[in-house]
Amino acid sequence: MTPHRLGGVWAPAITPFQKDLSPDPERFARHATWLLENGCSGLAAFGTNSEANSLSVEERMTLLEYLVEHGVSPARLMPGTGCCALTDSVRLTAHAVGLGCAGVLMLPPFYYKGVSDEGLFRSFSEVIERVGDVRLRLYLYHIPPVAQVGISISLVARLLKRYPQTVAGIKDSSGDWNNTAALLDAFASTGFEVFAGSEVFLLANLRHGGVGSISATANVNPAAIRQLFENWREPDAGAMQEKIAATRAVVQKYPMIPALKAIVARGLDDAQWATVRPPLVELSSGQRESLEAELDADGFALAG
Amino acid sequence: MTPHRLGGVWAPAITPFQKDLSPDPERFARHATWLLENGCSGLAAFGTNSEANSLSVEERMTLLEYLVEHGVSPARLMPGTGCCALTDSVRLTAHAVGLGCAGVLMLPPFYYKGVSDEGLFRSFSEVIERVGDVRLRLYLYHIPPVAQVGISISLVARLLKRYPQTVAGIKDSSGDWNNTAALLDAFASTGFEVFAGSEVFLLANLRHGGVGSISATANVNPAAIRQLFENWREPDAGAMQEKIAATRAVVQKYPMIPALKAIVARGLDDAQWATVRPPLVELSSGQRESLEAELDADGFALAG
Repeated sequence: MTPHRLGGVWAPAITPFQKDLSPDPERFARHATWLLENGCSGLAAFGTNSEANSLSVEERMTLLEYLVEHGVSPARLMPGTGCCALTDSVRLTAHAVGLGCAGVLMLPPFYYKGVSDEGLFRSFSEVIERVGDVRLRLYLYHIPPVAQVGISISLVARLLKRYPQTVAGIKDSSGDWNNTAALLDAFASTGFEVFAGSEVFLLANLRHGGVGSISATANVNPAAIRQLFENWREPDAGAMQEKIAATRAVVQKYPMIPALKAIVARGLDDAQWATVRPPLVELSSGQRESLEAELDADGFALAG
Repeated sequence: MTPHRLGGVWAPAITPFQKDLSPDPERFARHATWLLENGCSGLAAFGTNSEANSLSVEERMTLLEYLVEHGVSPARLMPGTGCCALTDSVRLTAHAVGLGCAGVLMLPPFYYKGVSDEGLFRSFSEVIERVGDVRLRLYLYHIPPVAQVGISISLVARLLKRYPQTVAGIKDSSGDWNNTAALLDAFASTGFEVFAGSEVFLLANLRHGGVGSISATANVNPAAIRQLFENWREPDAGAMQEKIAATRAVVQKYPMIPALKAIVARGLDDAQWATVRPPLVELSSGQRESLEAELDADGFALAG
């Protein structure tokens, strides 16, 4: 396997919308830049928390191009490109590779349930073959609580065996440390990059050979998460882990995406940031006040 | 509510693919025509069993236009237009209405799980408002076993109240007769059209005020299902119901979509029809032989 380590703290950058619910490229680029200047190693744009699945293929491509044209290095981008439709996944993946993105984060096709590993192997394989570009670095996206279609250890093994130069890692958002540990045991020694899908597991992941985290809360708490990433061998790493886990615990009492957007809206004093696309709904004023009070009590600030 | 009854036997027409996995418009139009000549009242193209969620927006639009240009009356079309992304659903719905389709069958956005009725109301409402065409007849598509996001009775009530001229009916693929009965009790008397999502419930549905069925097996068994629809008040309706339910029971022992395609491939002596898009996998030869033997024993034939 070619070494190409993208380890670190990555954020599935949230996607701002304008009043008419169209994506807002200017706010998006400003948030992306802020994240990269405040602790994020890179951006897993168009992840679950980016409301990517509420965006059309064209909307995603336009936003990605805007980022690259406005100063975000593609070397720090790992956009989500996995869709239900094979042809959409191919189109988005080829587009990301063409822009020079460091990697892509690929959901399995998620509409049909109970599909076989053979069917999922064919899905990823068709995308890799059709894109047909040696620059492609594919990170698998395992998030069974949402996608309902997961990526098994044996599927990873089969893909790695067939495409060792292309299949580069995985984001494990199962929420199940045992699964992350099994991935690390099976593949980390070969250079396969395992990202925790929550910073709650960042320290454990790094201690067991993982390379970092790609997590929702990195949108609002990048500096503290980065601090743990940089200092995970230090004696106070456990305390850092506890602190960032406590912040996450507050945020995830609320619907995650609306909560992240409410925090950014407050931090920037920019109410438009709170807008979500249906089927999501923004926080109620009661939820927002409660979240803000809890974060204040926690000493949290969206600090630059 | 404006009367506009599309009742009858509708098929979610399966979508043929060429060797390179691209959609095959010619085979598609031939199958569509065969269905309409052999019992189907209309075609719910781009349903779950059409592998619609494995097709891009452009692929769906191209196929739909091909059907209309090749002799399928849009008055007999109710294409699926519900996607994860609001903008995709709007685009497909406007396109279908523009072609003159009798209705559209709309999934809720299905990536994000545990979403609220408020969020789903906004999703459907945004599509209706943005399409902004009095010709739109929207049929809700409730299929929680696959989509994992369902359409509650109270959501139907709210949509009907706000858009009584547009929200025309529902396909209930919950597999739960109690849910279908609750829909019929609540809404059938107003003209709201309840379709059973399986012909197993066709007789019960018609007896309780429903208007027909939209079901996978109509792709291969349209004449027998139509016979029950035409004769549901006759004394032998129960026997007809048993017969079509027995055929369905055989088919659904196997993965449904590959099984339907295998049956068509055999009936037309056209092996290319068996192709499915990943993440689905065609039947193994053992499965195919077993299915064929069971259907032969059942006296089933794909008859024109």
